[in-house]
Amino acid sequence: MEIKEMVSKILELIQEKKIREIKKELSDLEEIDIAEVMNELPLDSNLLLVFRLLDKDVSTEIFANLDTEEQEYIINSITDKEISTIIEDLFTDDAVDMLEEMPATVVKRVLKNATPDTRNLINQFLKYPDSSAGSVMTSEFVDLKSNMTVTEAVNHLRKVAKDKETIYTCYVTDKTRILEGVVSIKDLLLAHSDDLLKDIMEKDIISAHTLDDQEAVAQDFAKYDLIALPVLDNEERLVGIITIDDIVDVMTEEATEDIMKMNAIVPTEDPYLKTSAFKIAKSRIVWLMILMFTSIISGLILEKFEDAIAALPFLVAFIPMLMDSGGNAGSQASTTIIRGLATNEITLKDCLKVAWKEIRVALMVGLVLCTFMAARIFIQYHLIHQVDGGPVKLIFAVTGAMLATITAAKLVGSLLPMLAKKVHLDPAIVAAPMLTTIVDATALTIFFLLVKAMYQI
Amino acid sequence: MEIKEMVSKILELIQEKKIREIKKELSDLEEIDIAEVMNELPLDSNLLLVFRLLDKDVSTEIFANLDTEEQEYIINSITDKEISTIIEDLFTDDAVDMLEEMPATVVKRVLKNATPDTRNLINQFLKYPDSSAGSVMTSEFVDLKSNMTVTEAVNHLRKVAKDKETIYTCYVTDKTRILEGVVSIKDLLLAHSDDLLKDIMEKDIISAHTLDDQEAVAQDFAKYDLIALPVLDNEERLVGIITIDDIVDVMTEEATEDIMKMNAIVPTEDPYLKTSAFKIAKSRIVWLMILMFTSIISGLILEKFEDAIAALPFLVAFIPMLMDSGGNAGSQASTTIIRGLATNEITLKDCLKVAWKEIRVALMVGLVLCTFMAARIFIQYHLIHQVDGGPVKLIFAVTGAMLATITAAKLVGSLLPMLAKKVHLDPAIVAAPMLTTIVDATALTIFFLLVKAMYQI
Repeated sequence: MEIKEMVSKILELIQEKKIREIKKELSDLEEIDIAEVMNELPLDSNLLLVFRLLDKDVSTEIFANLDTEEQEYIINSITDKEISTIIEDLFTDDAVDMLEEMPATVVKRVLKNATPDTRNLINQFLKYPDSSAGSVMTSEFVDLKSNMTVTEAVNHLRKVAKDKETIYTCYVTDKTRILEGVVSIKDLLLAHSDDLLKDIMEKDIISAHTLDDQEAVAQDFAKYDLIALPVLDNEERLVGIITIDDIVDVMTEEATEDIMKMNAIVPTEDPYLKTSAFKIAKSRIVWLMILMFTSIISGLILEKFEDAIAALPFLVAFIPMLMDSGGNAGSQASTTIIRGLATNEITLKDCLKVAWKEIRVALMVGLVLCTFMAARIFIQYHLIHQVDGGPVKLIFAVTGAMLATITAAKLVGSLLPMLAKKVHLDPAIVAAPMLTTIVDATALTIFFLLVKAMYQI
Repeated sequence: MEIKEMVSKILELIQEKKIREIKKELSDLEEIDIAEVMNELPLDSNLLLVFRLLDKDVSTEIFANLDTEEQEYIINSITDKEISTIIEDLFTDDAVDMLEEMPATVVKRVLKNATPDTRNLINQFLKYPDSSAGSVMTSEFVDLKSNMTVTEAVNHLRKVAKDKETIYTCYVTDKTRILEGVVSIKDLLLAHSDDLLKDIMEKDIISAHTLDDQEAVAQDFAKYDLIALPVLDNEERLVGIITIDDIVDVMTEEATEDIMKMNAIVPTEDPYLKTSAFKIAKSRIVWLMILMFTSIISGLILEKFEDAIAALPFLVAFIPMLMDSGGNAGSQASTTIIRGLATNEITLKDCLKVAWKEIRVALMVGLVLCTFMAARIFIQYHLIHQVDGGPVKLIFAVTGAMLATITAAKLVGSLLPMLAKKVHLDPAIVAAPMLTTIVDATALTIFFLLVKAMYQI
């Protein structure tokens, strides 16, 4: 059934006070789907009613999947004791995600109801910067010792499995919490029951540090087909693990962010439909303003050639074509390179290779486009209606400007993101405004210089 | 050590015939990194030498991670018996990925050396269409029966674990291969040793069908935090599973594809640096050509207003600004909606909500931009140098055109992708060319109509 139908059904059942039936309807759903239904409920006592009807062993997981507004409403409506249960049950990463979005008073009340251990852990995790490995890790990993036997390890696993985010990969640490090795549950299964962990564990460990960028961590997951990754602090002590489900979210988030940046939007993590028009306008106005002012440069160039335009006003008809083709050619190149840099397929060392490739591509596409454009000009300005000085001068001016524009666009479009990365700016952000300005200015200047030379204005 | 340094080191050791040292160097690397080193080796007998030096128990996995060229070179250089070992060892999904890229003669030779079972399985898998769930699934899953006890299941697991792509989720099927339930290794660990699988297995199963779109499957993985998903055929029989590592690749691939489409590139899966300039030019020329011809429409509109341009040539200076601002405003909206549709955050039902939101956003950003533009015109054309008819007429014409263009751009940019999806076209492809044309045409037409009205030309 659709989420929205489910929502109306639940609201109806609440009105009819058919509590048992609500429970039944909900128990047929996946936990994630229950959270989606609850996210669609109005923020009132009905939401609270549904929350309290949930099975105790899944209610925290469902709570973790609610939107911020719903979480805040529930926290503000329940007792200290209920808060305490939730905060102790939540995985650290979910608790931190929630608290980061809450007002200070709510955070205070939640932490007051946590045990000192939980509170310290959450406070420590809250300090990791946004988009760092520390900000996506969780502390619920399985911690084993190297002198355990396989049987001891499995028995330990049985005891703790329920509260761990993953049990498929277990971590072997020493007394000072230094990570010594990794044992997968497959290793345990295939080993002899009295083998010692130190003899079967993998000692070459792929790990991250708390301050590593989450995008780099996601690349490691993709490259090495990981499902979990240990995270170490400055002193190489194991402080948490990152699991693949969070990395899947990071990947979607980072791709969305890059797409937004490439298209002149200040990225936000807020869902579009739940964000106010004012906030969306704010995230868009910055670049529109910058780009409006940079496009004044192109206007000023055109002003410089007012005499040519006044003499041959039909030339203006070629301006959109030159500007659009240049813009498109440039964004093709910049998009390819920005994405290549993001997925690590292209590195800064490939800069000369890229430039040489783009020059050849520019000449190839440029020549094809110029051929068609020349044919079009010949047909329109020679066969259909004659133009001053014949079509040849015009063809030279237009195709010359076109080829130069496309080459400039491809070169600037490909090298600008690499240059940005080199000086530690964000390739996706830098490319858009500068590219448009440079390409437009090149197109117009070369076109009118060629026109002036051809027509001797 | 960097991959490239490693490559030179290996080549040096080969020349010095220090075989044992090569083995040592390689054994210190992750398998994926060995594959990366081999991908950088020249396609000659040295590559073959390195391949034959690999440990037998990892050589197939490394082979699976080689690029197509390297795989083909090795297949063409080894004996039938070696081929047979590789093809029987490969996971079905890796075998299929490889064979899809090989010339027919190579495919024939490989299949000739496979056992009949493997050959049938591969032939069946090769038939699933590109981008379908069937094309990313593999057949190496753990298959259990519902009347097994936990102990029997674990003993079975021990026997088969080595050859399975994942053992964390096991599948319970009946005699006709219908999927009855799913048991995670965590369930097995927490259950009593003589519990029957039918009593502990999860019967509400999230599954896919072979012909489902891989993007929809990826969305399910993200939503339900899955690490593996069973794939059923038309008769609901279990034919394979999809694991999260392949979904991570699908997600990267799909995001890249969307980004390329949004930026007027025909998407390819070929890595940029290994693709010839000619092939890259081919993937870019199509849209450049289409967009060049659609931008002729804007040119024709300008031709219609030749008299206005001849009379007031300074007006041309506003063309780049209007076109760029419209284009940027439109691509902001279309990007947001295309991405929202791709991540399932926005559905077609939200169409009115989206339109209303975009109109409000357009008015807000439009008014801000117009205020700045009016101030700029006043300063430039009144304070710095006077213009015919004073700045007021010009301000009306420019800001009027600006506000109309931005509103049109936001509306068309947001609704066009939704319309495309409604009629089962790809939102990302349709938006770019039509948006530019519509926005440019609107901007120029309104601007010159306002100019003509104001200046009574």
